[in-house]
Amino acid sequence: MMRFMAKKAITPGPRDERGVLAARIVAGARDEFAQHGWAGTTIRAVARAADVDPALVYHYFGSKEGLLDAATNPPQKWLEHVAKVWTTPVDQLGAALVTLMLASWADEEIGPTLRAILQTAAHEPSTREKLRRVVEGSLMGVAQLGSDDRDRLIRSGLVSSQLMGFALMRYVWKIEPIASMTDDEAIAAIAPNLQHYVDGDLTR
Amino acid sequence: MMRFMAKKAITPGPRDERGVLAARIVAGARDEFAQHGWAGTTIRAVARAADVDPALVYHYFGSKEGLLDAATNPPQKWLEHVAKVWTTPVDQLGAALVTLMLASWADEEIGPTLRAILQTAAHEPSTREKLRRVVEGSLMGVAQLGSDDRDRLIRSGLVSSQLMGFALMRYVWKIEPIASMTDDEAIAAIAPNLQHYVDGDLTR
Repeated sequence: MMRFMAKKAITPGPRDERGVLAARIVAGARDEFAQHGWAGTTIRAVARAADVDPALVYHYFGSKEGLLDAATNPPQKWLEHVAKVWTTPVDQLGAALVTLMLASWADEEIGPTLRAILQTAAHEPSTREKLRRVVEGSLMGVAQLGSDDRDRLIRSGLVSSQLMGFALMRYVWKIEPIASMTDDEAIAAIAPNLQHYVDGDLTR
Repeated sequence: MMRFMAKKAITPGPRDERGVLAARIVAGARDEFAQHGWAGTTIRAVARAADVDPALVYHYFGSKEGLLDAATNPPQKWLEHVAKVWTTPVDQLGAALVTLMLASWADEEIGPTLRAILQTAAHEPSTREKLRRVVEGSLMGVAQLGSDDRDRLIRSGLVSSQLMGFALMRYVWKIEPIASMTDDEAIAAIAPNLQHYVDGDLTR
């Protein structure tokens, strides 16, 4: 997706239609992978969702792997939101991180991308690698945490484990009453725990 | 599985071979579903893993759905472990729950079952329902938590979200350094957070 956008930027004009169609295919692929996982998603179903010919999907993305790669690229605006959250003073990071998670899943582009990553991460080594990069490069990219590299990665890994477990129960598995509790309830309940991972004593 | 064990108990003798074969098929199915999810698992692959004819799998379990149902039934010993943990004094439940989770995933029968449930929960309504029952009936089955039913279910749901998110990162996605931190490190880091969900103030 980002690679394609770059291409589009340097070849305007007749390629604009290609940009529109590719974006539609990526959006359809996100939804299909998010709902059915890797093995349950077919190029044909993605083409149907995007209202294009399956041949065009192959032409643009080469393979199902290429399509998954495009569909699970974190949107640029999400990376910007994440980078901004990490400028929050350390003693307020717990609340800021829960708030970011709730806003991300509510976003109509970011939500399906995160869901597609979580749904395919378990099966596909390439998507697990992408999940690892998303976790390490965004959630775990905080120099100010911890006493050394390992401590920093454990702290941000624990933060990720809570945020992803909650997101799975609330948005993917829809287990009640987690699915219907209000955002304010979620922030009040979870923020202190994330704060413990951010700057608490993890050894006692 | 439990249904079958019950049948076996009342019809001993010539059916013993059936019990052995069915258990081998269930074990194979657990591993296949755990590794490949619902859509990626075939009866043929399960039969191969169990070293039986595919027709026997159909004969014993009727369909892929029936096989998934058998493969994701929580083992009896797991239910017993869970019930025992809930007799822990409330102020020590945080540590007891993390310890139970680590022991469960290390168990050669319980671990693959939990993994199979998590891997198929997102796609299959019947397995999501089973996940809900596992969560509500075991992790969330604690009368002594919370001020009312909703509060109790929110507290145990938050406990589940942390335990499942950590288990996914550590055992399914194998994200470092979460995957290789020691059990003692995990207990020290996570127990206080579970304790907060068990009996802390979730409204501030």
